[in-house]
Amino acid sequence: MDPAVKKAALRLFTYGLYAVTARHGDELSAMTVNWIVQSSFDPPLVALAVEHDSHSRQVIEAAGAFAVNIYESGQRELAGSLGRTFAKHPDKITGAAWTPGPATGSPILAAALAWVECRVQSATPSGDHVLFIAEVIEAGQHRPGAPLTIAEAGFKYSG
Amino acid sequence: MDPAVKKAALRLFTYGLYAVTARHGDELSAMTVNWIVQSSFDPPLVALAVEHDSHSRQVIEAAGAFAVNIYESGQRELAGSLGRTFAKHPDKITGAAWTPGPATGSPILAAALAWVECRVQSATPSGDHVLFIAEVIEAGQHRPGAPLTIAEAGFKYSG
Repeated sequence: MDPAVKKAALRLFTYGLYAVTARHGDELSAMTVNWIVQSSFDPPLVALAVEHDSHSRQVIEAAGAFAVNIYESGQRELAGSLGRTFAKHPDKITGAAWTPGPATGSPILAAALAWVECRVQSATPSGDHVLFIAEVIEAGQHRPGAPLTIAEAGFKYSG
Repeated sequence: MDPAVKKAALRLFTYGLYAVTARHGDELSAMTVNWIVQSSFDPPLVALAVEHDSHSRQVIEAAGAFAVNIYESGQRELAGSLGRTFAKHPDKITGAAWTPGPATGSPILAAALAWVECRVQSATPSGDHVLFIAEVIEAGQHRPGAPLTIAEAGFKYSG
């Protein structure tokens, strides 16, 4: 396999951009992700790949839950800000207005277009990431609008 | 949870459209999917949710492999054609030109923008779907171009 062709093909996959947040006691996590899809209608499940060696993976596992906040078109700067590493920017979420989700306490961003709260059902190893399958147990929509895509933002996280 | 709000939020997720194909002996399968993401860089893995009660799930499990063919912008009709149910349209792939993939024999569509062949690593139950995690072992790009998105096609498979 030619690694350059592999990278080019995988970068043709289409992605949105989302802030995934979690809370375990006083510990908060927030990150910008694109590797997430729905994976069942009934019950409603989502599948989320999280870097194994990340702060978010630890908090999500401890909490057994997370929220997915859907960025709106135009929110490239917010997505970039929450996409910085926790190691270098442990307070990155304090710059964003949020309230605890009603079902799990996971941070719900005021700026997000809409959000879902999810309860983790399983965690499967997936190379350098962990794949969480989680049930959608609460949802909200702040306003109508179009979602931010990775193509609009010009970010690259695939290949 | 309000089911209408849950549906509205989940329909704000961003998706591409892909033909996932597989071959086990003389048995061929092809379907149009959007619930697929990359799930690891090293090794390169993808995660694909497939309806449990589908012909494709059976063929992918038997073959232990599949190909992901990335539709090009403008290929709504092809995506719709391969998106029909196997039960009613068992010959749907015969209308599309294809060749066997070099690594797995899975059908590679001549019309696709690019493709990857994947070897299944694990299959995890995910409600009414099964989530395959699979390693990308071969890739090709037929030509440059932009991918078809579910937003462009106007299809709905989420919520």
